[in-house]
Amino acid sequence: MAVYTDVAAEDLADFLIHYDIGELLSYKGIAEGVENSNFLLHTSRGSYILTLYEKRVAKDDLPFFLGLMQHLAAHGINCPQPVVNRSGEALGVLAGRPAAIVNFLEGVWPRKVNTAHCAGVGQALAKMHLAGADFPMSRANTLSVSGWRALYAAAEPRADSVQTGLCRLLGTELDYLENDWPRSLPQGVIHADLFPDNVFFLGDKLSGLIDFYFACNDILAYDVAICLNAWCFEIDHSFNVTKARAFLNAYEKVRKLSVAERDAFPLLARGAAMRFLLTRLVDWLNVPPGALVRPKDPLEYVRKLRFHQSVKSIGDYGIEQTGSMA
Amino acid sequence: MAVYTDVAAEDLADFLIHYDIGELLSYKGIAEGVENSNFLLHTSRGSYILTLYEKRVAKDDLPFFLGLMQHLAAHGINCPQPVVNRSGEALGVLAGRPAAIVNFLEGVWPRKVNTAHCAGVGQALAKMHLAGADFPMSRANTLSVSGWRALYAAAEPRADSVQTGLCRLLGTELDYLENDWPRSLPQGVIHADLFPDNVFFLGDKLSGLIDFYFACNDILAYDVAICLNAWCFEIDHSFNVTKARAFLNAYEKVRKLSVAERDAFPLLARGAAMRFLLTRLVDWLNVPPGALVRPKDPLEYVRKLRFHQSVKSIGDYGIEQTGSMA
Repeated sequence: MAVYTDVAAEDLADFLIHYDIGELLSYKGIAEGVENSNFLLHTSRGSYILTLYEKRVAKDDLPFFLGLMQHLAAHGINCPQPVVNRSGEALGVLAGRPAAIVNFLEGVWPRKVNTAHCAGVGQALAKMHLAGADFPMSRANTLSVSGWRALYAAAEPRADSVQTGLCRLLGTELDYLENDWPRSLPQGVIHADLFPDNVFFLGDKLSGLIDFYFACNDILAYDVAICLNAWCFEIDHSFNVTKARAFLNAYEKVRKLSVAERDAFPLLARGAAMRFLLTRLVDWLNVPPGALVRPKDPLEYVRKLRFHQSVKSIGDYGIEQTGSMA
Repeated sequence: MAVYTDVAAEDLADFLIHYDIGELLSYKGIAEGVENSNFLLHTSRGSYILTLYEKRVAKDDLPFFLGLMQHLAAHGINCPQPVVNRSGEALGVLAGRPAAIVNFLEGVWPRKVNTAHCAGVGQALAKMHLAGADFPMSRANTLSVSGWRALYAAAEPRADSVQTGLCRLLGTELDYLENDWPRSLPQGVIHADLFPDNVFFLGDKLSGLIDFYFACNDILAYDVAICLNAWCFEIDHSFNVTKARAFLNAYEKVRKLSVAERDAFPLLARGAAMRFLLTRLVDWLNVPPGALVRPKDPLEYVRKLRFHQSVKSIGDYGIEQTGSMA
């Protein structure tokens, strides 16, 4: 939650001359996005989000992210749609940073997730996977299994200071995941970070998906596993099988999981828990003294990982094991 | 710039049931206000600001601030107008904090102040002073001359670590101000913090005044002196007499300064510089290690104070000395 860069009204007015979005009425730095600076713009035409990309986002990846949002929006997905300037470009420069404007999506993200939300996100994720199928660009997932060993190495020396035995748990799990990670499951464009704060609802109806800045090409069912981790556990980290059933059934109504995807699902769920456990642990161990932003608790994902380790098959997630709905 | 408190969408929806402002479409924490948490709301009726009052604002002062905004708005001042709930109350409770909703003012605050801005703020300040004349509530100014000795005491032991000789400068100036501070100038409701980030413009036209959370009863011309300090110096802290002339002339077109106010003006300008110098100095000396928010530079106001010390009369601020425009 941060605005890293202030933008002078005069500089913004100059920037907007290159866009056909009406007269600027107001703009406010908003407390969303930890990687970039975001502003909510009001113009005589409506509301927009202006994003300044800060250092942590690789500039070379921006055409992928913006192109993906354009592609998905054109294929019926409710996501921020980049506004092109008078030269047809979605990417400009403002305050010395790469900058883009997208349309503003109304909706609020649920702080208290219910089963209807889980069904909504399941359906939307599957639609996104289908809509992304013919997107021509690609981007490797640096936070997939091949990237975990380096994160583990960074966290390993002090992991046990967070929880006794954590180092050993991670090491054993990482060996297992690296050995058994599936190589031939259907791949495509995944969101890779579809947590509740990236999904908007109006009432119980899903109104949009945002924040595609972790999107990449990877195993589609791995994206499903990330969402299951993010949406189907309670505040006390206990698994809610009703939510998982609603989520997975809604996904499968749009895109059926294959037998191979179902067989691999518990492993993918462990991998998804491992990925967020590792990045949170590294952040946790590297908080600057006196920092105002408290990092997210890595132990939440230790609990989730242990749950998935106990799972025997996708049936334990609440849906029929055999795929007999096909 | 901070959002201290997150608000659950579900809690906000419950809160809004008590208001007649339409259906909630979205809300974003905005990076404005250092004392409170602010959210920009979109509803089916329009845009609003929701403020949660954090600890640094005295709860007992809220009826004064909200009542003042209602009073000023009813008297033609473009300022945030509190929205009353179905019980007729402007103040509610949300997320355990006092909370209020005001209408949203379009406009942007100028990062690069020009002469037209200065004229606009001069006119608006005078109109505000007139409109506040019959506001029935009152609030003492804890940051006026009577409060400076305590700030000086807090800063004095380490003042010279910021600039050699600063302690002596402050001590001498404080003795002078306490002795000579005027006791019989016209008083009324003052804004007390009308810096550029609290004044909105659309183009060169002033569209609104915000942030009345330092408002209080004090010498009206002292408020003029605060604005002169805030608006009529350049980035390099040099005084811009053209801006000051535009500012003061625009003020006087609406509310003429008396001879006594004019005579006292250089002293009031020194006092205004002293007030911001002292609070900035105390903040500067008390930054928590590793804090992400960089405090404002107190030395800016050392430069301004020294300038005012060199002033012989209000004529040095660019307007006619004798008040012959009357």
